[in-house]
Amino acid sequence: MVLIISLTTDFGLQGGYVGSMKGVIAGIAPHATQIDITHAIEPQDLRAAAYVLWTALPYFPEDSVHLVVVDPGVGMPRRAIASRTPWGVVVGPDNGVFSYVWAAATSDLIVALENPRYCRVTMSSTFHGRDLFAPAAAHIAMGVPLEAFGPRVTNPVKLHLPDLVASDAGIRGEIIYIDRFGNAITSIGRLVWEGLGLHLDPAFGTAEARMINTARVSVRLPGHASHSDIGRIQHTYGEVAPGEVLALVGSEGMLEIAANQGSAACILELRVGDVVEIVGEGGA
Amino acid sequence: MVLIISLTTDFGLQGGYVGSMKGVIAGIAPHATQIDITHAIEPQDLRAAAYVLWTALPYFPEDSVHLVVVDPGVGMPRRAIASRTPWGVVVGPDNGVFSYVWAAATSDLIVALENPRYCRVTMSSTFHGRDLFAPAAAHIAMGVPLEAFGPRVTNPVKLHLPDLVASDAGIRGEIIYIDRFGNAITSIGRLVWEGLGLHLDPAFGTAEARMINTARVSVRLPGHASHSDIGRIQHTYGEVAPGEVLALVGSEGMLEIAANQGSAACILELRVGDVVEIVGEGGA
Amino acid sequence: MVLIISLTTDFGLQGGYVGSMKGVIAGIAPHATQIDITHAIEPQDLRAAAYVLWTALPYFPEDSVHLVVVDPGVGMPRRAIASRTPWGVVVGPDNGVFSYVWAAATSDLIVALENPRYCRVTMSSTFHGRDLFAPAAAHIAMGVPLEAFGPRVTNPVKLHLPDLVASDAGIRGEIIYIDRFGNAITSIGRLVWEGLGLHLDPAFGTAEARMINTARVSVRLPGHASHSDIGRIQHTYGEVAPGEVLALVGSEGMLEIAANQGSAACILELRVGDVVEIVGEGGA
Repeated sequence: MVLIISLTTDFGLQGGYVGSMKGVIAGIAPHATQIDITHAIEPQDLRAAAYVLWTALPYFPEDSVHLVVVDPGVGMPRRAIASRTPWGVVVGPDNGVFSYVWAAATSDLIVALENPRYCRVTMSSTFHGRDLFAPAAAHIAMGVPLEAFGPRVTNPVKLHLPDLVASDAGIRGEIIYIDRFGNAITSIGRLVWEGLGLHLDPAFGTAEARMINTARVSVRLPGHASHSDIGRIQHTYGEVAPGEVLALVGSEGMLEIAANQGSAACILELRVGDVVEIVGEGGA
Repeated sequence: MVLIISLTTDFGLQGGYVGSMKGVIAGIAPHATQIDITHAIEPQDLRAAAYVLWTALPYFPEDSVHLVVVDPGVGMPRRAIASRTPWGVVVGPDNGVFSYVWAAATSDLIVALENPRYCRVTMSSTFHGRDLFAPAAAHIAMGVPLEAFGPRVTNPVKLHLPDLVASDAGIRGEIIYIDRFGNAITSIGRLVWEGLGLHLDPAFGTAEARMINTARVSVRLPGHASHSDIGRIQHTYGEVAPGEVLALVGSEGMLEIAANQGSAACILELRVGDVVEIVGEGGA
Repeated sequence: MVLIISLTTDFGLQGGYVGSMKGVIAGIAPHATQIDITHAIEPQDLRAAAYVLWTALPYFPEDSVHLVVVDPGVGMPRRAIASRTPWGVVVGPDNGVFSYVWAAATSDLIVALENPRYCRVTMSSTFHGRDLFAPAAAHIAMGVPLEAFGPRVTNPVKLHLPDLVASDAGIRGEIIYIDRFGNAITSIGRLVWEGLGLHLDPAFGTAEARMINTARVSVRLPGHASHSDIGRIQHTYGEVAPGEVLALVGSEGMLEIAANQGSAACILELRVGDVVEIVGEGGA
C-alpha cells in the first residue's frame, strides 16, 4: 500500500518551516510519499487556501491524507480537526479552510485533535504545523483511526460561500481566485458544455441548475466601467487574438475571465470579490 | 524497480495546478517517485523550458519519464506527444519544447497521444497537464508501450536552434538563458578544458569543432558599448575580485558571462538573444 | 529501511539546477526519498542557511543525509566535507554553513570528500552540487562509510556565532533571521516557559542559563528610536490587537519580535543584526 500525504500551507519556501514538518512526518511515517500542493498561499489567506484545496483534492486517491496549515489563530483557543472526505482525510485548524471542500462533498466524520499521544512532546504555541498537525497526519496515514484523536465535532467553523445568484435576468457571481497567469476564476459553475449551450451546475449549492445558450448571452463586469463587456463565452484561449480578453469555462468548470497569452487580471485590474454577470445580449 | 517521473511546467507554485497533476499521477502510478525539475518557467516561455530540459535530463536514469507542460496552444489543434530519448521518455505538447533535447540526442520514436483510454474521462479544454499529459506520463511509467498511445509522428514542431557561427575571425553566439544568479549562459559550447586551451564541441550542431587557445582570445559583447570587453576566459568565479565580471565555462560546458558574488545580468544589462563573441586579442 | 536525503540550496526553483542534482541522486540511490528543506536561501547567504539548518535538522530521523549547497567559494580551494551529527550526516562545502548545527550538537566525525570514486567522472568547476555533493550524499545514503571519502577534518571553517550577553543589567542579543511573515527571530534563547517566567537556555553557548520573570521585564530595540519599547513577553500572537507588535517565544524557543496578523519587520524596519534587549521594567 502506498501512503500519500499532501501538504498545503502559507509558509512559503524560504525558511525551514516546511522542512521541519516533512522531517516530523518522515520520522513517523517513513514510507509515506509527501506531495506538495502549495506552500505559496498568501499569509493567512483562508479563502485562497479553501479554493486551492477544492480544486486539487478531487484528483487524489481516496486514501490520501491532506495536511493543511493556514492558521492565523495559532496559539489561540481554536480547535484542531481531522475530517474524512471522499478524497481522503483532511487535517488542519478549525477555521473554515475546509469549507469549500465540505460544500462539494459532505464529511461523514470530523474529530478534534486532542489526544496528546499523537502530538510532539514539547509543543510550541506558534508552530502547530510541526508539533500537532504534521504528527496527526502522519499517524492517520499509518492507520490510527480518527476516533482515537478526540471527540466528534459537529459545528466546525465555516466560511461564507462565494456569492452566486441565478434569476430570469441572468446569473450573478463573483471572482473567487486569480491564478498565476492572471486568469480570474468566478463562482459561476460548474459549467458543462452541452451542444450549443452550457449547463450550469452550481458548485456551492447556492443557485439552481439551468441551461445557458451561449449564442445568446454575454459576460459583463458591472463594476468595471470601461471594460464591462467581455462578450460571449468561448471554448478556449486561442479563439481571440493574443492579448485579447475573453470569457471561457476553466479547467474546474467555472466561468473564467482570461486573456490569450496575457493576464486578464492586469489588463482589467480584476480583484477577488469583483462581480461577474452572465446576461442575455442586449441587456438582461 | 523504481519509477521516476520528473515534472517541468510554467504553472508556478501558487495554486493547485501542480498538486492536481501529482494527485492524478499518484492515482495511476502510486509507486512512482515524482521529482520537480521546475514549475517556475516564465509563463509560456518555450525557449527557457527547452534549455532547462536540455541541462537537466542527461542527469536522470534512462528509464525516467519527463512530464513537460509549457503549453501556450492548449485547447487549439496542436498535437500531444511522447518521445523516447536516451534519458527517458519525454511527454508534452508538440510545440518545440523538446527541440534542444532532440538536438543533443536523437529520438528514435515519437508518438501522438490520441488513445482516449489513457486520458481522464472528462477532459477540460484548458488543463491538458492534468487531463492528458499527467495520465500519459503515469501510464508510461507503469509500462504501457509508446505504440499504444497513437500513431508515429515524423514531423514534430521544432524551435529555431540558438545561433552559433565559427569562422577564422572568431566564434559568434548568443545568450540563451539567464539563471537566478544573473549568470548569462551562451550558445558557445560545449567547451572542454584541454591543457591551456578549450575544445569547442558545438552543442547544437551548427558550428564545427575547434580548439581555442585561451591565452590568446578575448570575450566581447558587441551590442554593449561601454562594457564590450569581458577579457579572457577564466576557470572560476574567484579569479576576479568580488563584483567583477568575467567569462568562464559554466557547469553545462557553455561559455558563460558571470560576476564573482554578483549578477552579471544586472551589471551589464544582459538579455536573452544578446550577441557574444570570442575573438583573437587585438581584434579578430 | 527508508533513506531520507534532504536538500538545502540557494539555487532557487527557476532553472534546472535542483532537478539535475535530484536526477544524479535518483541514479545512485533510487530508493531514497528526497525532501526539500529549501532552495530559496538568498544567494550565498551562509548565515541564513546556517540558521535554517539549525531549525530544521532536529526534526529529521537520525539516519537522514542532509545535502547543503550554499557555496560562494565553488571552484576555489575550499574543502568539501561530510559531518556526522545526532540528526544524520550533513554534506556540503567547508565554509561554516554547519556552524549553528555544530553549536547545538557536536559532530564526532568530519571528513573531507576527496575520493574520486564518489564524484561524477566529469566534474565542472562551478557546479559541485551536482558533480560532487549530490553523488556523495547519495553514496552515504546507500551505506558507504564516511571514512571511505577521505581524511578526517579537525579544523572546519566556523562562522562567528550570534551575539548573546547576559548580565545583571539584562540580556542583550541580536536579530538572526527574518522569516516570510516578517517575524524577527533573535539570538536570545532557547527560552522555555516555567510557571510565570521563562528559563533562558543559551542556544549557542555564549551566555549562562538564567530565569526571567516575564512580569518584570520589557523587550527593547535600542537602535530603533521611535519604537524602542516592545513591552512584555507574550504567549502568542493573539494577545495583542491585529497589526500590533509584540515579543514572544517563537517555535524554536528563541525570543521573537512579531506582529499579530502583520509583519513586524515591515512595521519596525527590522534587519538581521539589529540589537534586541530584555531589561527590567523602569530601566535595566
